[in-house]
Amino acid sequence: MKIINLDQIKEALKTIDIITAIEKGFIAYSNGNAVVPPVGELLFKNPPGDVHIKYGYIIGDEYYVIKVASGFYDNPKLNLTSSNGLMLLFSQKTGAVLGILLDEGYLTDLRTSAAGAIAAKYLAPRVVNKIGIIGTGTQAKLQLEYLKNIIGCRDVIVYGRSDYNLSQFKIEMENKGFQVIPTKSIEEVTSSCNFIITTTPSTSPLLFAKQIKTGTHITAVGADSPQKQELDENIFRNADVIAADSIKQCVERGDITHAIHKKIINEGQLVELGNIISGKNKGRIDDQQITIADLTGLAVQDIQIAKAVFEAIK
Amino acid sequence: MKIINLDQIKEALKTIDIITAIEKGFIAYSNGNAVVPPVGELLFKNPPGDVHIKYGYIIGDEYYVIKVASGFYDNPKLNLTSSNGLMLLFSQKTGAVLGILLDEGYLTDLRTSAAGAIAAKYLAPRVVNKIGIIGTGTQAKLQLEYLKNIIGCRDVIVYGRSDYNLSQFKIEMENKGFQVIPTKSIEEVTSSCNFIITTTPSTSPLLFAKQIKTGTHITAVGADSPQKQELDENIFRNADVIAADSIKQCVERGDITHAIHKKIINEGQLVELGNIISGKNKGRIDDQQITIADLTGLAVQDIQIAKAVFEAIK
Repeated sequence: MKIINLDQIKEALKTIDIITAIEKGFIAYSNGNAVVPPVGELLFKNPPGDVHIKYGYIIGDEYYVIKVASGFYDNPKLNLTSSNGLMLLFSQKTGAVLGILLDEGYLTDLRTSAAGAIAAKYLAPRVVNKIGIIGTGTQAKLQLEYLKNIIGCRDVIVYGRSDYNLSQFKIEMENKGFQVIPTKSIEEVTSSCNFIITTTPSTSPLLFAKQIKTGTHITAVGADSPQKQELDENIFRNADVIAADSIKQCVERGDITHAIHKKIINEGQLVELGNIISGKNKGRIDDQQITIADLTGLAVQDIQIAKAVFEAIK
Repeated sequence: MKIINLDQIKEALKTIDIITAIEKGFIAYSNGNAVVPPVGELLFKNPPGDVHIKYGYIIGDEYYVIKVASGFYDNPKLNLTSSNGLMLLFSQKTGAVLGILLDEGYLTDLRTSAAGAIAAKYLAPRVVNKIGIIGTGTQAKLQLEYLKNIIGCRDVIVYGRSDYNLSQFKIEMENKGFQVIPTKSIEEVTSSCNFIITTTPSTSPLLFAKQIKTGTHITAVGADSPQKQELDENIFRNADVIAADSIKQCVERGDITHAIHKKIINEGQLVELGNIISGKNKGRIDDQQITIADLTGLAVQDIQIAKAVFEAIK
């Protein structure tokens, strides 16, 4: 049994092709080869916090995986990050504990960004003129970083509400080779960018149908619970491709759920990311389409990233 | 963060009063002071195995706890024990990982036996003439061991189907100060013993109403899923006290569920162990009563034993 700390995980990640690992996970999920029970949840009031337990396995694989990820939102007052957690690998043959990845929530952040890159790979317009990022937090930055190998464009417009966070985003991302224009106007993003990623915990829509230009792709990663919403439902009315990481999960949480409840779209219009990757369903087929990817986060992503890190170190 | 192995856990257990810790857990649960979501489950076919994830916290406590316990039933062919697992302690204030108890399923066995001892404390007849044990496995032995401090009687009749397992049980338990008569007749147990513990994974009843003498107590710990059953439903018809570790859980799994479904008893007749311990409900009040305790295993037991071990070592 191996116990692996965050420094070792970060070192191992340099040698790993996460994108390919997670693509395989999405395919297994969409093929019905992954066993992924409903997410376990614990909520805390004082101080406010939530814990999600995602777990499962790919049939015939060596491992089963349990991931614990928490957000304790008063932590910054104590000079601690909000996120924490770990990933556990067990033998699917004997139940033995094989590895404990003390990732402190980091691998959850990465596998989410990797899913964004995968969505871009199959759904981004051929030529991205400007990348729009809604939000300035950890996930906003990581999503952009992970696009580097998928999209050639380095021009970014970032929307945020805090001057400080906008300028921090600009400094950090320009250090990574992007040119960043900060804005407090969503319109500035939607009028200039044909590739937009939304990364906020908003509970009311930030983007509206009339703002979205023909040929735009939107990846929505912020909304992971039934209450959260970043995209106005009517955006889905004009979409040519609506991809979900999991149709089952997106009908219950994320942005798609709102459009379904208002009967703007129906479940039959959704395609699963795994089926796009495997070629069963089409991704973007021309540069005039509006495409949307709604990513709510699947246990198969956790399974695949945990396996990849563990095997790189083992 | 502390990682604690099985040897360290066994050492720490020598200094801990588990019974008191788990009694407090039952009381917190019955008072509504414990947050205990539904059990997470993973099933495996080849080789056959199951994993249960029990988790939760006591409101206002320092920790939240996640327990993973697995059974892989072909393990003995590989010279491995069927059980495995671990317990995780996290801060309820920040989400930080505080401790990992690599107990390999051992603490789950112990907290189950401790619950049996607690049931005995409040429900056993004043004078136990002979202890009857149904089953010869790990839990059968541990239940008997944990009775030592609760019940003075050292005369045991053990029922099993395998001569080898019966003789092993006799040797081990006589080394621990009991006098053991092995039998392959359930009647021999029920006619002589006024305190009986059933510890098997049976899916059809082993004990029947006409066998149970006035004044007998039965603790049923084997049935922890809806399919399993050790007590014929009619036994409940004659019972004066029917205690459940959790009314909610026992209505869905364990022996009580069968009696409820056949309308032999109703939920209103059940009392919770935590309420007996706290004095809200009565346990046994005279030596003529038939009493039953149905123990299906609660996350609060895991929380309390994990905390006790962690604090003893910390």
